[in-house]
Amino acid sequence: MKLILLSGGSGKRLWPLSNDARSKQFLKVLESKNGNLQSMVQRVWEQLTKIGLSESTYVATSKSQVDIIQNQIGRKDNLVVEPSRRDTFPAISLVSSYLYSVEKMNLNEVVVVLPVDPYVEDDFFEKIKNLENVINQSQADIGLIGVKPTSPSSKYGYIIPKNDLVDKDYFEVKNFIEKPNENEAKNLIDIGALWNCGVFSFRLSFIINLLEEKGFPTNYEDLILQYEKLPKTSFDYEVLERVNNIIALSYNGYWKDLGTWDAITEEMSTSQIGVGTISRDSNNSHLLNELDIPIILLGVNNLVVAASPDGILISDKAKSPSIKELVGDYNNRPMYEERRWGWYRVLDFTKTDEGNEVLTKRICIKAGKNLSYHYHNDRSETWTIIKGEGIFAHNEKLCFVKPGDVLKINEMDKHGLKALTDLELIEIQAGSQLIEDDIARLYLTWEEIEEQCYFLTK
Amino acid sequence: MKLILLSGGSGKRLWPLSNDARSKQFLKVLESKNGNLQSMVQRVWEQLTKIGLSESTYVATSKSQVDIIQNQIGRKDNLVVEPSRRDTFPAISLVSSYLYSVEKMNLNEVVVVLPVDPYVEDDFFEKIKNLENVINQSQADIGLIGVKPTSPSSKYGYIIPKNDLVDKDYFEVKNFIEKPNENEAKNLIDIGALWNCGVFSFRLSFIINLLEEKGFPTNYEDLILQYEKLPKTSFDYEVLERVNNIIALSYNGYWKDLGTWDAITEEMSTSQIGVGTISRDSNNSHLLNELDIPIILLGVNNLVVAASPDGILISDKAKSPSIKELVGDYNNRPMYEERRWGWYRVLDFTKTDEGNEVLTKRICIKAGKNLSYHYHNDRSETWTIIKGEGIFAHNEKLCFVKPGDVLKINEMDKHGLKALTDLELIEIQAGSQLIEDDIARLYLTWEEIEEQCYFLTK
Repeated sequence: MKLILLSGGSGKRLWPLSNDARSKQFLKVLESKNGNLQSMVQRVWEQLTKIGLSESTYVATSKSQVDIIQNQIGRKDNLVVEPSRRDTFPAISLVSSYLYSVEKMNLNEVVVVLPVDPYVEDDFFEKIKNLENVINQSQADIGLIGVKPTSPSSKYGYIIPKNDLVDKDYFEVKNFIEKPNENEAKNLIDIGALWNCGVFSFRLSFIINLLEEKGFPTNYEDLILQYEKLPKTSFDYEVLERVNNIIALSYNGYWKDLGTWDAITEEMSTSQIGVGTISRDSNNSHLLNELDIPIILLGVNNLVVAASPDGILISDKAKSPSIKELVGDYNNRPMYEERRWGWYRVLDFTKTDEGNEVLTKRICIKAGKNLSYHYHNDRSETWTIIKGEGIFAHNEKLCFVKPGDVLKINEMDKHGLKALTDLELIEIQAGSQLIEDDIARLYLTWEEIEEQCYFLTK
Repeated sequence: MKLILLSGGSGKRLWPLSNDARSKQFLKVLESKNGNLQSMVQRVWEQLTKIGLSESTYVATSKSQVDIIQNQIGRKDNLVVEPSRRDTFPAISLVSSYLYSVEKMNLNEVVVVLPVDPYVEDDFFEKIKNLENVINQSQADIGLIGVKPTSPSSKYGYIIPKNDLVDKDYFEVKNFIEKPNENEAKNLIDIGALWNCGVFSFRLSFIINLLEEKGFPTNYEDLILQYEKLPKTSFDYEVLERVNNIIALSYNGYWKDLGTWDAITEEMSTSQIGVGTISRDSNNSHLLNELDIPIILLGVNNLVVAASPDGILISDKAKSPSIKELVGDYNNRPMYEERRWGWYRVLDFTKTDEGNEVLTKRICIKAGKNLSYHYHNDRSETWTIIKGEGIFAHNEKLCFVKPGDVLKINEMDKHGLKALTDLELIEIQAGSQLIEDDIARLYLTWEEIEEQCYFLTK
């Protein structure tokens, strides 16, 4: 059995702590067993590891999230990077073609697709293990896990059984009903319906045949080139609703979709993360502050306050799911990003009267990591080292740098920086148009740089 | 007649937009007649100017507020700077000694003391003009203005008349009652009591005699040296409650003490200042945002949200007066200050593993202004010019600077900077202890610097 962990998505419902480079699954707001804070992806990875499934897991992610996922799960291989963000059907197809054509898996291999954002107990993963047997026993095309409802919620999709016999471990699926009203939901629960929690399983042959039928390549390298032609739809819509032979396994345990601030705050073990104060006469309020600026909540009730360099949300908890509609205007440059080599934070941005732009960042490069050797066409940079030591590569010359050193990098100057110890610097970019795309990489490893450049005498 | 405008105070009740260098009276949240935003001090100065009293007005202020008051009212003379913050009795005594010994005013001159924070209509200032006649007619020691109450509020002090005849323009004062309960307040209003709004007037001789009686010098230069010995109490407590011969003039018009967020927001003509969004389903909520970071209010009611680099307050409006008790912990380095030469804003602060500190600021120097020639014992500075042009003085050398120039200033290096056009720079301070007091000024005018230094050839 192989697993596909779906870790794409932008998570605008958790603005401002999530952005294009840091989706909700990377927010460290949950408590781990050792008392530290961990993210959804770290929690699910810990659970997969514990049950012995992480080695069989492939992570589907987007280009902008590769760095952070590697930092958070400490894993470099078994990542499949989507060329663009196109919903779950294309993502699942791409990883399946990778398993088939690159990893050369047997077509009878059972594949289980797992979203990254449900908050579940460990026994949920025992159910996932069971899926392999059930698929093989039942000869169904698709196997699902359904969650036994704890209330007639109108927020979820329901899996309806073909008959009302629920004494078996699983049932054959008749159809799906999306977000029924409360009365309808009550009736569905009476006939044994389950919540659809987004877990799908199938034999690899199923999806490979499907791609062939639809006229898409099954070879990974070819499919990546045609990725934009895959329908931008969900697996639910593209596959689930058109297949007859589906079974569902019942999970009777804790499950929660951590998609909105009201759901997340219910699972937080503390009411405050970051600097600030919640007054004693405030009730049922949560503060998540990633800024250095203290935040005081005074005499308020049922609020969630979330602050990052991207924005500050002050919301009634029950209203918080509708943030998605309001943030369209503020989808600007991310103010904080985790990268393969460390992180950066935007401190300031301004335009001059002449139309030039100036961007000030604080950048941290972790010991042993380096910024790749590259140059910019339209901007100069000034780096002032404030912490740590490193080696600066600049137009084929190398030199050691330390706190207090100021490095001037003109347009078209080749430059790179390796941290010998954890290194921090203030970067001031200046130019006519400061865009992330203005970077020409020279694709050299640090070893190659050291070979091709020469050290300046001190 | 001379006026003393009391503009000291720290205004912690309006945290985080007020700090030691920028009290509530400097916040630009009120709407001026031309539709721009103006501060309390600008509003009262505009009103004093209109009625022809600003030329006769002396402003009592603290050292840290001299720069901002000069910027806001465009006035350099007639400022009397308190050596330390010691309440209203010492401040009024100091300005009185200045009028007496420096300005050589006649002891019969009538002096009116005016707090800076009441929000009043223009006819309030007509009443102030009347005080001179009333003091002279009545031969009272002290003349007050009392506001005709509009409700039996228990927030204010009440001025009680000697008899219930209120047909005259003024009455003789029997006594004062502070913050009565609502029933008591009703009874006081029935006998013609007025709200005490903190306006006092007296002949100059009155306060000079009082200082002599108490054994304090009446000469300004001497009193400044003994300022710390003056009782740290209010004029109300030290004088008003011990004098029998007081009259009060009745003002029947709009008056409001703009001391708390709930009062301020009632006088704001807009519900939002700064970047952000208030959702349509939010009610009676105000947003004042001085950050570049957008703030979204979603589905909230009766909130005031105020944000500056010093902190972010999210408060129920009715609870907002109690912010004063909560901010003690956050009384740190101010993150934004207006100065004589422009302004600065702290972008970042961090400590290195070796215990050094690094502070990053964005600094703006207005065209024609300059940073004084000075040096630091324990810190180096790196200045990167990002906007505008200027002249840099550095260890007796001068050079022109422009955007992109990086200036390295080591410990003990003498340096200064004059802006030829509005000039901005990013400053990175580094040192063992970054305190504002580590500055040795050389007390040269810019003309003297240009005489004593020589220009480097470009």
